[in-house]
Amino acid sequence: MPVQFPKHLKPIEPQGTTLLQQERNNATFNSNDLTQFIYGNDYLKSRDRILQILQADPLLGDKSHRYYNGRDVRFKKSLAAANRLVELTRIHEWNDQEFSIAEFLFDEPSPFRLHRSMFMPTLANQGTEEQKKLYLEPAIRHEIIGCYAQTELGHGSNVRGLETTATYQPETQTFVFNSPTLTSSKWWIGGLGVAANHAIVMARLISQGKDHGPHPFAVQIRNLENHEPLEGVIVGDIGPKFGFNTVDNGFILFKDFHVPHIGFLARYSSIDKATGEYKTPPNSKLAYGTMVFVRANIVLESRVVLARAATIAIRYSAIRSQGSNASDPKKITAPDGPIKTVETPVLDYTMQQYRLFPIIAQAYACHFTGQEMHRMYYENQAKMEQGDFSYLADLHASSSGLKSLTTTLAVNAIEDCRRACGGHGFSLFSGLGQFYQDYLPKVTWEGDNYLLTQQTSRYLLKTLRSVRSGKISQKNSTFSSSYISEYLSNPQAKCPFSSVKDLSNPEALVSAFKFRAAFLIDKAVYAIDVDQISWNDMLVDIYRISRAHCQLLMVSNFIQAVFNNENPGTLGPVLQRVAILFCLSTLDQEAADFLTSGYLAPAQAMMVKQHLIQILKTIRPDVVALVDAFDFPDYLLNSALGENDGDVYEKMVAMTEKEPINQLRVADGYQEFIRPLIHKGKDNWKLDKNGIARL
Amino acid sequence: MPVQFPKHLKPIEPQGTTLLQQERNNATFNSNDLTQFIYGNDYLKSRDRILQILQADPLLGDKSHRYYNGRDVRFKKSLAAANRLVELTRIHEWNDQEFSIAEFLFDEPSPFRLHRSMFMPTLANQGTEEQKKLYLEPAIRHEIIGCYAQTELGHGSNVRGLETTATYQPETQTFVFNSPTLTSSKWWIGGLGVAANHAIVMARLISQGKDHGPHPFAVQIRNLENHEPLEGVIVGDIGPKFGFNTVDNGFILFKDFHVPHIGFLARYSSIDKATGEYKTPPNSKLAYGTMVFVRANIVLESRVVLARAATIAIRYSAIRSQGSNASDPKKITAPDGPIKTVETPVLDYTMQQYRLFPIIAQAYACHFTGQEMHRMYYENQAKMEQGDFSYLADLHASSSGLKSLTTTLAVNAIEDCRRACGGHGFSLFSGLGQFYQDYLPKVTWEGDNYLLTQQTSRYLLKTLRSVRSGKISQKNSTFSSSYISEYLSNPQAKCPFSSVKDLSNPEALVSAFKFRAAFLIDKAVYAIDVDQISWNDMLVDIYRISRAHCQLLMVSNFIQAVFNNENPGTLGPVLQRVAILFCLSTLDQEAADFLTSGYLAPAQAMMVKQHLIQILKTIRPDVVALVDAFDFPDYLLNSALGENDGDVYEKMVAMTEKEPINQLRVADGYQEFIRPLIHKGKDNWKLDKNGIARL
Repeated sequence: MPVQFPKHLKPIEPQGTTLLQQERNNATFNSNDLTQFIYGNDYLKSRDRILQILQADPLLGDKSHRYYNGRDVRFKKSLAAANRLVELTRIHEWNDQEFSIAEFLFDEPSPFRLHRSMFMPTLANQGTEEQKKLYLEPAIRHEIIGCYAQTELGHGSNVRGLETTATYQPETQTFVFNSPTLTSSKWWIGGLGVAANHAIVMARLISQGKDHGPHPFAVQIRNLENHEPLEGVIVGDIGPKFGFNTVDNGFILFKDFHVPHIGFLARYSSIDKATGEYKTPPNSKLAYGTMVFVRANIVLESRVVLARAATIAIRYSAIRSQGSNASDPKKITAPDGPIKTVETPVLDYTMQQYRLFPIIAQAYACHFTGQEMHRMYYENQAKMEQGDFSYLADLHASSSGLKSLTTTLAVNAIEDCRRACGGHGFSLFSGLGQFYQDYLPKVTWEGDNYLLTQQTSRYLLKTLRSVRSGKISQKNSTFSSSYISEYLSNPQAKCPFSSVKDLSNPEALVSAFKFRAAFLIDKAVYAIDVDQISWNDMLVDIYRISRAHCQLLMVSNFIQAVFNNENPGTLGPVLQRVAILFCLSTLDQEAADFLTSGYLAPAQAMMVKQHLIQILKTIRPDVVALVDAFDFPDYLLNSALGENDGDVYEKMVAMTEKEPINQLRVADGYQEFIRPLIHKGKDNWKLDKNGIARL
Repeated sequence: MPVQFPKHLKPIEPQGTTLLQQERNNATFNSNDLTQFIYGNDYLKSRDRILQILQADPLLGDKSHRYYNGRDVRFKKSLAAANRLVELTRIHEWNDQEFSIAEFLFDEPSPFRLHRSMFMPTLANQGTEEQKKLYLEPAIRHEIIGCYAQTELGHGSNVRGLETTATYQPETQTFVFNSPTLTSSKWWIGGLGVAANHAIVMARLISQGKDHGPHPFAVQIRNLENHEPLEGVIVGDIGPKFGFNTVDNGFILFKDFHVPHIGFLARYSSIDKATGEYKTPPNSKLAYGTMVFVRANIVLESRVVLARAATIAIRYSAIRSQGSNASDPKKITAPDGPIKTVETPVLDYTMQQYRLFPIIAQAYACHFTGQEMHRMYYENQAKMEQGDFSYLADLHASSSGLKSLTTTLAVNAIEDCRRACGGHGFSLFSGLGQFYQDYLPKVTWEGDNYLLTQQTSRYLLKTLRSVRSGKISQKNSTFSSSYISEYLSNPQAKCPFSSVKDLSNPEALVSAFKFRAAFLIDKAVYAIDVDQISWNDMLVDIYRISRAHCQLLMVSNFIQAVFNNENPGTLGPVLQRVAILFCLSTLDQEAADFLTSGYLAPAQAMMVKQHLIQILKTIRPDVVALVDAFDFPDYLLNSALGENDGDVYEKMVAMTEKEPINQLRVADGYQEFIRPLIHKGKDNWKLDKNGIARL
């Protein structure tokens, strides 16, 4: 007999739905307009169509099991879902973008994820036409399933350290794969543990006695008939993880395993079949262009991560009431007439605003920066096709740092929002726990967030040296070289903020971020070039430089997008307020840099801190509408706290009723582990017929 | 046929055990001496005895299942363990301290946790002698199992907002319990979902038509004979959480549920049995003393959390090698003679040092502050017994802020350490994932870490006002009033750091922290008293004040303990270096405050930043010994990355072999969800007899 909550009980007044409605009525703009502005109509139409398909699907429509099951059950359901998504793709003839929308809405990492995101693209980019026919075509039809095996148990970011070997034997015309050590086991490979029958394997190519370093091979690893591992292959799942447990991250080792000559992906380099002679690849910068595109998408993904976490925390904070704000107590009119004081929604406390509103601003900042990166990607591709590579280095450097910055912001935001939800944030029903666990690896993979910043800063230091030596002039300047050059022309500049009005001056804000980034770059160049400090001893500064540069990019893109628009429309004022909030909260958080540079005076820093509280107040009426504008369907959020209609407590209760423990009147384990203890005291009992001690 | 790794493969040279041994050889002090210093011999002897009992126990000795199972299995095992710990306590006649050691080593939140930590202490403190006999005595024998039911679905920190009512009926001489709304459901109650048959319930006491606000009642909730919920009670488990899933946090609602008169805990207030007349409690400050003790223990717990996370990350970072540090490449002598360059242990990169070494320093800082709190607790208890309450307010205020600060540090440290372990940090085998998940609620419960700081700061603001008005003089001064008064006598003081030598001057460092805290307090008093800023608009400053004050306490206690000792012994130099690291890394991290106050000049801030990198280097040789000194048994750590002997990769592999998925040659789910896709392509196959596509 499962536990049931009394159906007649309602939450205390005022109801969540009422509170959310009030918030929506108070907004200064129409959130639907902003939704259209963010996504455009085409996307929204596709999304709605796909959402209907998913919600109606018998297998994919119900996410209610997700929070209760262990890895075994969740993984099997995840395989079933992966299979079903392939079927739906066939039925509805979804293109890549439509599939991505479905994947986003379904919102669970899939065992087929790497098949689509790495296996197929690597074949497409690095395979010959023959190889595409052999591997890519069946892969598109999911008749083979692949993964991407690069990292090893002992080797992460440093690809040159990989140990797995592929030695070419001209006699057999095969590459012989071996795992020489335990640390050479391929590890963390998504889709490899259970699903994949093929892999792109990065292995050291050895031919004619020479080690040519890591190269990619297409390798069949499991029997197509029965899925058993092939002879010479040891493969399995790497076990439980902090998150991502619906994916079968796997390991693989090879022992004298033969891969045919055709397996070596030969678009850029090749091995002569007869002799084993190695032909070096022509140097190509084109791959960097693609990386910019991938990273632009990561920035846009950060945007929805930030916005989704904020949606849950903001909506719930409008409903969750606690204590009373002495200076402005919350009052409601009771159904029977009199006005009474009720607890204050936590959203009215400035501490909660200080914790949450900057996250909304970061989401919008990532939106505009992601869009700008897409624009620059296309501009750069067009230039590169004409042989002009002048944009590439700047764009690549910025994109590395932005991946690092925005994914760090996003992951911190989920956890900050979870904590800002108080106790209930810790319940999986909040929709923030698994979300955090599954998003978290982003700060480590596709470029570790610390390592990546070295790429950004190395470029910026080089740029400063070139500006100083006159190699870069106005003619061939970039955004980076311009602001560095501006700084070098007046390194003693002081921040002009003299009143709070200046704190809303977009140009003054951008200038401050420019000065701070350039200052850090200049000091680092001096330390390295003059003081001969080693690169290793500069790593902390290097990290800060990248962060400062990328915060500048975000500030600049945001300001550019919402202030320089000739016709800002009805959305102008609110987006401008959000932009100012982004600038000031970032400035406040990084105040130490601005102060240390001597640009910002102590009194100015104090002014920023005080004014920030006022800015939070100007945003306050719009915050629910600002998160509503991201228009996340309840199907995506899967959150008792954050869904659209605000019936938080009813949802908590409904989800609690489904907890497996609650399906029995007396839980499993009682007989064995509790009863013996209690019944030891039996001699002392005076129980009535209902089992109640008579005291 | 389970997956097995080839037994003959070893990790790449140099081996982890060798690397850790080198680290230990390089230490400047004996880590065993430090272990003795931290814990004392008595504790270590008890611990070793209990550790042996646990490790030898058939049920508690094996933790290997923990990372693979879902909540259902883990919870049942957790009940079994709770039962077994009760048995062991009986067998070995463990006292409270010994039980705590066992609980610490076993390291899994238990369904009986609140029975011991809240149910029994509440009865002991708030029950009459008769009530102790009725409830506490059987509870000590575990013949009844209790929990502590305070928070409700709609009400967390604000106890006054609780809705559950207990209305006294003189006719029946019972309290009638009711849950008037859905939000009044008791929620989050540890042990209630499955285990407890009794609860301390906080309910609004209503008698003679008057609401006396929340009071504690001892209430039987399940049938002692068969554990079924009593009539009028709806009880169950609140469902899955981000962590703590081995505990049955539960909910309960009441409908016209009668509790006998004796259930009202009547040591401090009472209800006349015949008339229902309420007698108000005498005001007692004694409870605050206990709170200080509880919080001193939380600070000491933070110490071991910090140290445990650091142990794992530091040991693994000494072994995990990646890339090459160009300025100081790592070389080893190969077994066959020649010296060769190998990858650099990540511990040699300053970024990794910057991320991890301050965490070690924080652990030691919490050690000395926790000890000082214990000392002050006893001093204060002695004073209170003589009617002297002069220490209490200061101590209570500081203990609130320290709970907030040290648990925030600790929870951040686990996650920072996890990320610093790269990809493998994300594997549960790291020993950091579940550790984080289970420790995390500490920042929310026993006083939310944001709310608590209001208590601290309110006291400090009041202190400044009293100093200024002359109410506090040298005669009745406290630590807080002294430093505030020092500041007020010279609010324009400037930091005297002129060379890096000054940065190791303990007095100068303490002075800087004093100035900064007092500055923040002074500005807040001005804002509130003169500028009439509301408390709500000051909450961000309030939080910072508490943080600044508590960082000062930690700095001051640490310095006091390791510099003012007349005979520092062999441990003196290393502990002094760690103290300086703690001061400088905290100063660097909070530089914005120091700069904004005008005390620290930009050039000084820059000097701190640069010198910090040098301090990290001086600590470098000792870091493994510094974490070794905390002497955590492998049984506790349960971590492939962090165990004592350094065979990281062998442990990762051994734990991977136990993954349930790897027990089958072809995983469950293949037949149903993968095979149909692959076999669709059958017509195109040319397979050889081994299932390999012939290309």
